Amino acid sequence: MSNLRKYIEKSFLSLAIFLVFLFSFSFISSEAEGQAQKPLYLDIAQKILEKGLREEQAFALLEKLTNIGPRLTGSAQAAAGVELMQKEMKALGMDEVHLEPIIVERWVRGNPEEAKIISSVFGAVPLAVCAIGGSIATPENGIKAQVIEVKSFQDLKKFKDKAKGKIVFFNQPMERALIDTLRAYGQAAEQRVIGAVEAARAGGVATLVRSLTLRVDDFPHTGLMHYEPDVSRIPAACISTKGANLLSELLKKDQNLNVFLKLNCQQLTPVTSHNVVGQITGSEKPDEIIVLGGHLDSWDLGSGAHDDGAGCVQAVEALRLLKELRIKPKRTIRAVMFMNEEFGGSGGRDYAIAGGRKKETHLAAIESDNGGFLPLRFGVGGSPQTLKRLQGWEYLFKLLGMFWIREGGGGVDIAPLAKQGTVTIGLVPDSQRYFDFHHSAKDVLAAVHPRELELGAIAMAIFAYVIAQEGI
Amino acid sequence: MSNLRKYIEKSFLSLAIFLVFLFSFSFISSEAEGQAQKPLYLDIAQKILEKGLREEQAFALLEKLTNIGPRLTGSAQAAAGVELMQKEMKALGMDEVHLEPIIVERWVRGNPEEAKIISSVFGAVPLAVCAIGGSIATPENGIKAQVIEVKSFQDLKKFKDKAKGKIVFFNQPMERALIDTLRAYGQAAEQRVIGAVEAARAGGVATLVRSLTLRVDDFPHTGLMHYEPDVSRIPAACISTKGANLLSELLKKDQNLNVFLKLNCQQLTPVTSHNVVGQITGSEKPDEIIVLGGHLDSWDLGSGAHDDGAGCVQAVEALRLLKELRIKPKRTIRAVMFMNEEFGGSGGRDYAIAGGRKKETHLAAIESDNGGFLPLRFGVGGSPQTLKRLQGWEYLFKLLGMFWIREGGGGVDIAPLAKQGTVTIGLVPDSQRYFDFHHSAKDVLAAVHPRELELGAIAMAIFAYVIAQEGI
Repeated sequence: MSNLRKYIEKSFLSLAIFLVFLFSFSFISSEAEGQAQKPLYLDIAQKILEKGLREEQAFALLEKLTNIGPRLTGSAQAAAGVELMQKEMKALGMDEVHLEPIIVERWVRGNPEEAKIISSVFGAVPLAVCAIGGSIATPENGIKAQVIEVKSFQDLKKFKDKAKGKIVFFNQPMERALIDTLRAYGQAAEQRVIGAVEAARAGGVATLVRSLTLRVDDFPHTGLMHYEPDVSRIPAACISTKGANLLSELLKKDQNLNVFLKLNCQQLTPVTSHNVVGQITGSEKPDEIIVLGGHLDSWDLGSGAHDDGAGCVQAVEALRLLKELRIKPKRTIRAVMFMNEEFGGSGGRDYAIAGGRKKETHLAAIESDNGGFLPLRFGVGGSPQTLKRLQGWEYLFKLLGMFWIREGGGGVDIAPLAKQGTVTIGLVPDSQRYFDFHHSAKDVLAAVHPRELELGAIAMAIFAYVIAQEGI
Repeated sequence: MSNLRKYIEKSFLSLAIFLVFLFSFSFISSEAEGQAQKPLYLDIAQKILEKGLREEQAFALLEKLTNIGPRLTGSAQAAAGVELMQKEMKALGMDEVHLEPIIVERWVRGNPEEAKIISSVFGAVPLAVCAIGGSIATPENGIKAQVIEVKSFQDLKKFKDKAKGKIVFFNQPMERALIDTLRAYGQAAEQRVIGAVEAARAGGVATLVRSLTLRVDDFPHTGLMHYEPDVSRIPAACISTKGANLLSELLKKDQNLNVFLKLNCQQLTPVTSHNVVGQITGSEKPDEIIVLGGHLDSWDLGSGAHDDGAGCVQAVEALRLLKELRIKPKRTIRAVMFMNEEFGGSGGRDYAIAGGRKKETHLAAIESDNGGFLPLRFGVGGSPQTLKRLQGWEYLFKLLGMFWIREGGGGVDIAPLAKQGTVTIGLVPDSQRYFDFHHSAKDVLAAVHPRELELGAIAMAIFAYVIAQEGI
């Protein structure tokens, strides 16, 4: 790429066209102020964009947050994350910065886990492994058993007797052919979430699950699992995709191989933790709220950079951009960093019903919880009329290279608000790289790009502001 | 992100909707075959997409190519790249695989460069430096001189006398506030390209240029520069952005500091190199050609993974996808890996006028030379009618998450074809990360994501195929 002279010329031309464009719009909006679907707020959106990209403060804040380490629900690091975000919002001069207490479970991984193949043909072969969140420990000396490989619960039912006394190895890969990797995740995740229940029903003594990622590498990915009251609890772990491929290969050659598994997890007593709240109070309708949110807890591998440090710092950065540009919203724009999304969602549930909510009306909640990647669009949960109304603002997001507002919605944290009539909106970033990092030791600051992260914050700031001004 | 049950339900729903969608489209297309703007080719596009994402062979080929090392025009590695790509296309069973000789200049960097600040206040401080491509060497013992910092050629003119005998330090950063980083590059690049000419006119003895990247790090970025016949030639180098910031800071405190610069570049005699050509010959109109291209040469730092190994492997991968799916185009789809884009563009020029071209008509040329990132759209150079006609295919690219066909065009390599009436088309990927890597030691395989790269190849395959079937 070195066609420079042409570029330089083009740049001047583009700049000229852009200025004419801006000028025409500012002319139109002063002519037709207050009418719907006019290019209002284009100058403000441009200012937010420029300030954000110049300063990249979302990334600077994410660096501070990830320096704390992983923020597993109930951990000391999660508490340190709460302190940091509260302090940062106060330092930025936000209004009404406070904590809202919630009770959270506390599960800990314990000492390093261990898994290995033990084969009379191949000897001992270690597997990269991690307990699934919520799993019980193995007995102190571990479990050693033969392995049965299945791709689905249907498979498992077919093999029912054969699973007895064995470790059930769920090896369904995420479907790479899907452009939407979240859909591929959704399709494959049940083996991790309820695999231990299904395996126990079939008489299995433990489960090993192929990590939910599209990469073939040696990083195990954790996540949440459930037990059921009437089914016996067995230990559950994820192995890396390389490990899963290897185990599958070796099983073809030695069906009698054993796997040794040792997990050291513990369920401790619940503790008090907090949602972190701060805002720019609306000048005209302070009790009408637009929430910007993410979740502050993370898994205990990596440091929760994409999931969901990104969403938290984007919410704070959106407020900072508005505040420092002295943009004063008519309605309140509030950042909420929810605790405990990963381990049960109590932060989102308790926020929606907390005492302070009674006098408030939540117009909209915008959540970022799909990684700090290039934002592509917003997904809106609400009536077709609401969607259509909000689509009228699409032109503002074209400044950022985003091109859609579509049907969709937010995630776990803001779902309880949706039940109260709040319009929930999800920031939808590019999903191609997300599961490389998700819930693994690879989810660290270096996996996040400052400009991609910032563009998400900018998009949230612009959307929150126009809703704060114009309603929904 | 753990709202799994909801996801699983949604996935089934989406799948159902998608199947209904596909079914309706296949019904409509059989009803209205041959009419313009009908959802033709949707099933073929879906097949190409799925095969590409499942197999990720663009990345596998890029791994082989980058293993060769940097492919500077005229180098042994560039020749090895030519051999590899020819061999790979033959192994894939492509038609008419051949090389087309071109003459290329041969510039070499020589021994490692050196630059350091020498200050009576701060002592000696090393700077990360690289010669700009085409620069002459310094004298054997280097150059040691005082430094004048400027942000523009206007600055330089103002300071004219003060630049005499000094090293001119061009320190204009790329504008971070622009969403299109290519535009930011275009605006800042003239200091690298013709800075040495302007500095020499002002009496300078060498130039140091701030690297063209939006990151503040310690990697110098090279690129091309020009001398002019009537202006004396002075050595020109880029320093890292960290180095540039440091030098600027120290200059504020010690205006009399010196910089020592030693470059060891050499201009060797020109050598013969090659464009690499292979194709799927059209079944009905073999002499009507759609070119898919990238450039095979790279800079000598890094291994030219994004720039432009990506474009080369995408062109080959597009052919592979069509070939292995037994999709037989009516017109010829040809991959051309142009040599010497970075050092003068002789590959593109010579391809357009080579003997074999006489009997051929080039309908369209699609170039990928902006990195192997997530493809966002195509830019079409041609009449408004052509653009409109091609925009009729936008629905095919929605399968990939791409949402536009817009005004635009290709790059250096296919520009000579545009002069002959060929419609030139550029694949436009996301540009947020490109200049982190561009022309630096960071442009290596690890900087490329297999799915992002593959999606570019898939988009090129689909576009080439519909043009091969329907014309333009």
